Amino acid sequence: MVSFECDYISGAHPAILKRLAETNMEALPGYGMDRYTESAKEKIRKACGLPDADVEFLVGGTQTNSVVISTMLRDWEGVISAESGHVSVHESGAIEFTGHKVLTLPAHEGKLDAEEVRQFIRTFYGDATHDHMVFPGMVYVSHPTEPGTLYTKKELEALADVCHEYEIPLFLDGARLGYGLMSEASDMTLEDIARITDVFYIGGTKVGALCGEAVVFTKNNRPDHFMTSVKRRGALLAKGRLLGIQFDTLFTDDLYFEISRHAIEMAGKIKEIIRQKGWRVYMDSPTNQQLIIMTDDEMAELGKHVKFDRWGPYDADHTIVRLASSWSTTEEDIEALAEA
Amino acid sequence: MVSFECDYISGAHPAILKRLAETNMEALPGYGMDRYTESAKEKIRKACGLPDADVEFLVGGTQTNSVVISTMLRDWEGVISAESGHVSVHESGAIEFTGHKVLTLPAHEGKLDAEEVRQFIRTFYGDATHDHMVFPGMVYVSHPTEPGTLYTKKELEALADVCHEYEIPLFLDGARLGYGLMSEASDMTLEDIARITDVFYIGGTKVGALCGEAVVFTKNNRPDHFMTSVKRRGALLAKGRLLGIQFDTLFTDDLYFEISRHAIEMAGKIKEIIRQKGWRVYMDSPTNQQLIIMTDDEMAELGKHVKFDRWGPYDADHTIVRLASSWSTTEEDIEALAEA
Amino acid sequence: MVSFECDYISGAHPAILKRLAETNMEALPGYGMDRYTESAKEKIRKACGLPDADVEFLVGGTQTNSVVISTMLRDWEGVISAESGHVSVHESGAIEFTGHKVLTLPAHEGKLDAEEVRQFIRTFYGDATHDHMVFPGMVYVSHPTEPGTLYTKKELEALADVCHEYEIPLFLDGARLGYGLMSEASDMTLEDIARITDVFYIGGTKVGALCGEAVVFTKNNRPDHFMTSVKRRGALLAKGRLLGIQFDTLFTDDLYFEISRHAIEMAGKIKEIIRQKGWRVYMDSPTNQQLIIMTDDEMAELGKHVKFDRWGPYDADHTIVRLASSWSTTEEDIEALAEA
Amino acid sequence: MVSFECDYISGAHPAILKRLAETNMEALPGYGMDRYTESAKEKIRKACGLPDADVEFLVGGTQTNSVVISTMLRDWEGVISAESGHVSVHESGAIEFTGHKVLTLPAHEGKLDAEEVRQFIRTFYGDATHDHMVFPGMVYVSHPTEPGTLYTKKELEALADVCHEYEIPLFLDGARLGYGLMSEASDMTLEDIARITDVFYIGGTKVGALCGEAVVFTKNNRPDHFMTSVKRRGALLAKGRLLGIQFDTLFTDDLYFEISRHAIEMAGKIKEIIRQKGWRVYMDSPTNQQLIIMTDDEMAELGKHVKFDRWGPYDADHTIVRLASSWSTTEEDIEALAEA
Repeated sequence: MVSFECDYISGAHPAILKRLAETNMEALPGYGMDRYTESAKEKIRKACGLPDADVEFLVGGTQTNSVVISTMLRDWEGVISAESGHVSVHESGAIEFTGHKVLTLPAHEGKLDAEEVRQFIRTFYGDATHDHMVFPGMVYVSHPTEPGTLYTKKELEALADVCHEYEIPLFLDGARLGYGLMSEASDMTLEDIARITDVFYIGGTKVGALCGEAVVFTKNNRPDHFMTSVKRRGALLAKGRLLGIQFDTLFTDDLYFEISRHAIEMAGKIKEIIRQKGWRVYMDSPTNQQLIIMTDDEMAELGKHVKFDRWGPYDADHTIVRLASSWSTTEEDIEALAEA
Repeated sequence: MVSFECDYISGAHPAILKRLAETNMEALPGYGMDRYTESAKEKIRKACGLPDADVEFLVGGTQTNSVVISTMLRDWEGVISAESGHVSVHESGAIEFTGHKVLTLPAHEGKLDAEEVRQFIRTFYGDATHDHMVFPGMVYVSHPTEPGTLYTKKELEALADVCHEYEIPLFLDGARLGYGLMSEASDMTLEDIARITDVFYIGGTKVGALCGEAVVFTKNNRPDHFMTSVKRRGALLAKGRLLGIQFDTLFTDDLYFEISRHAIEMAGKIKEIIRQKGWRVYMDSPTNQQLIIMTDDEMAELGKHVKFDRWGPYDADHTIVRLASSWSTTEEDIEALAEA
Repeated sequence: MVSFECDYISGAHPAILKRLAETNMEALPGYGMDRYTESAKEKIRKACGLPDADVEFLVGGTQTNSVVISTMLRDWEGVISAESGHVSVHESGAIEFTGHKVLTLPAHEGKLDAEEVRQFIRTFYGDATHDHMVFPGMVYVSHPTEPGTLYTKKELEALADVCHEYEIPLFLDGARLGYGLMSEASDMTLEDIARITDVFYIGGTKVGALCGEAVVFTKNNRPDHFMTSVKRRGALLAKGRLLGIQFDTLFTDDLYFEISRHAIEMAGKIKEIIRQKGWRVYMDSPTNQQLIIMTDDEMAELGKHVKFDRWGPYDADHTIVRLASSWSTTEEDIEALAEA
Repeated sequence: MVSFECDYISGAHPAILKRLAETNMEALPGYGMDRYTESAKEKIRKACGLPDADVEFLVGGTQTNSVVISTMLRDWEGVISAESGHVSVHESGAIEFTGHKVLTLPAHEGKLDAEEVRQFIRTFYGDATHDHMVFPGMVYVSHPTEPGTLYTKKELEALADVCHEYEIPLFLDGARLGYGLMSEASDMTLEDIARITDVFYIGGTKVGALCGEAVVFTKNNRPDHFMTSVKRRGALLAKGRLLGIQFDTLFTDDLYFEISRHAIEMAGKIKEIIRQKGWRVYMDSPTNQQLIIMTDDEMAELGKHVKFDRWGPYDADHTIVRLASSWSTTEEDIEALAEA
């Protein structure tokens, strides 16, 4: 059996494990006060081209979305997301758990349209009815999106323009950011993301780490007493070194980008296999996730040799199947898929 | 400099890192559905003498307290804790974040008194006034307690009796459970804890793991849809293997108990040094944390060579200082402390 | 100026004020323990044909929705509502404030379709993906709906069937229930509503009272310690008599139904005026709210003599305007509207 | 039977009912946008000597405490209260329901001591440990206090000094404010209260109204989008006129103060009866609540003719009994008590 079900099937990049082992017996302060965490923050700031940005490490994606959104929204506000957005559909209501509503707008291949966002927010001004509604206080996007598509620089800038027009932050969920940046279809660098958004995170869990997401507050806008807010959400890691050392390794010698590029190359080979086999593509994705449409019979046949994800129903007779590559996908995996 | 400031200054026990490395490239399902997590659960069930217990892994202590308490309390209930309890004082209000009150009763060397708990709960029956108050819905203890003391079997059973009399669960926070069980002063085994309490957890973060706590629901009482409740609290780890492999290792060949016993031996040596130096003891602790009373001058002197924790104020002129041993404390550390 | 902007423009029905004055100086216990509250509960039980139902009084509609939904949902659940549902759109996120998500399905003239609800809930069974989603734990409908339409008995029973198939409650928001029951288009009595739903409320605020909603738990399913749960939500009225006396009056000699019928008669006259004037109807409503489509010029003209509600945008050039009758609408009001 | 159990046993002052009846059929806008609400706000501003203060009306005391505290605290903050404070003990955890902790300090005859508050807050500065604790973000007092005592102007100013030193608001719960201001022991006027505190409320429920509390934000510090925050807490009254008309009446011709003075006179007569009967006083109260210590036999005897409140246990053999006067207490009530 070969696994393409998701991008978190393996442990960590070996360089990370090596580094954890080398530093293992050092006595270090807890809660992210250690030197490796500081070094990781510095490297991320440099990679972002933002020498003064606040960088904070959290453990997982849902946790990060929940912490960032609920500490940045004000009491009366909700967060705008595409209908298909992870925070709206696949986080068990983690945002609502913090008391805030997810305000959904149509998804266009997984993406929000800036003009639709503007029209929506505009209705909240100059109309008393809206005192009875949830005010839009943030725009959430993921990049890559749920179905693996990418915002163009122009599209993301347009969203940022709307946000700044109405003085609310643009938050980018980068759980798979590396796979987005290394896609040939991407016209943005990490520096672009850092410049355009108000807060975003660089996903580790799905890009080479055992766990961990690096949140970058790009505009001197980290919420006050952030550590306390993180702790009361049960999200403060005692041995912060576990996150610091991993990101320090990932941002040494461009490891994060290299392993992301590898995943994209493997994804290219998967696309080629899909083409050769004549499988029907659900949505063309330039990143590490490929969505195809299969009958139950086709799934049963493929499932004999390949683990894949049932992404969702397509119609009564077909299912959308996801094949994901990652930093740990090997040429042997690809060959096994080709033969399946 | 030698570090005795807390019991989470080092990484993980080397056997854990070795195991993480050995299993690193295996493709495993996420969210705790992997075989190592299943194996760890089975070993913990055996060690507890409860073949049918539900075991669940979470990342850290505050998170575990918050998840367990808020999923087991009912809407109108709060949790009883000693005034000095971790959930009451040192978790940034994580319990309140979930909407529930911590009801405090006096701490007797860090411990709740069963009879005081009974008197308190009794007042809630047959008195309409209490409809305007927060109903006690759980009793929380930690073992060892905040200042490092231990419940006796009789004391814990007395608390369990009160809980069962009023049909509410007894929850034991075992963030440092190994250090409690291996203390010579302990008259309880892990099986005793499992039998007496309704839910408890076996701390990994402070006892040899990079992170992780193993929650044991002892009475077929795991909340329904627990995984979803964990996820909406941002506490579900994508790579559940990180927790499963660590606990599988800790519960192989009694590693958890061995390294805990080592820490207790080291604590004995620290106590001997304290005695020799004539330092004033704040509270006699049979576990891995030693609390002593020092002036600012004494702290300044000690601080030249030793890292310690300022546990709290004692009086205007004195501070309570904590020296903690752990699984990673070495004979060299002890010698350095003796010389300091 | 004559007011048709909503159905809460007047104080209370004079019989209520009279009764409040008559009982004013009686010394009565607080928190709904008084004899008038008990009498009101008994009369409502009789009117519902449910001698054992639990009846509870709350102050307003959003409060009632929030209290009922959040005390009946379990931790991992959300409430299903039509996209246009009051709890989803017009309550400032009151449901989310309690930690729960509103799960929206398409609105068909303001109504949920039972088969669509079934299809939605069905996907949550036998599919691990749904552990990462918010589980449907209740179905919320309002009757009349937001745009003033009515469920037929068959439609409501079909929704109840789905709910009972999946063992979740059907909750009916009856903020304007009287206006629904007295509509000629209604094929349900209060007894039908009480029999079919699991919990519902009889709106007072919009039907003759100064404030107040009467919640009926029809299936011996009032949440435990309900009074405490109400109080912690800030919803417990000290002088419960204010609610008890009002509902006792409304349910004496069928006053609630009589004043509702009057409003429906007045609505019929408004419809006739609309027809005569040739105004464009947005959605045909058999209840007390009439929705018409107007240009800015038409609104300006009408606004010289009539207060109405801007219900929402229709298209770039037109607005949906609401004209509402109520128990307090007079023939003179209707004449003034006809002349406007 | 004569009732002295609490100060909310009667309906409303007759002048209020008269006013409600007179205005009953006027068509008025909802949600507090009506002219009577505006007039009431203006009269309260004048009475407070604060022409620019923001005044908002809410329905009840627990609701008001919950709304004010949770909209003014920041994410990481809790509210300081005396251990005996209403928000800590008798509101079913309404503050915790909003996610915030009540931080308790010792009660001195129901009052906080400014120096103890200062010492407590001071520990949060310059000490990293406190990142793991709940930060004090507001000081809550009630005036009169739970046992009916009063702050002196000097005591309240001292608390305000501490608050302003640390830039957090001082919030005064005036559920019984009239009875405090009219006490002979009071050295403060309403203007003093308004000047010294940052936010406070004038209780209506216990001082002549059917319901209602008037919140005064004294320092241009009403939270943004307050109406939306009120609504999402289920606390927005549709017919705001009910609150506006009541407070407009109470603040016309000093009615609020007159009826409060009457209650205090009646309380003086109760004190005289207590003295004559030789009952043991628990705490000397200069306001409308008198606390006495009784055996079960004495309570049984008194209970034959008088309704009173069992305020709490005193010791194994005695109970603290409360006798409360109010605006509606009559000379006949007093005579009946004297004879009992």
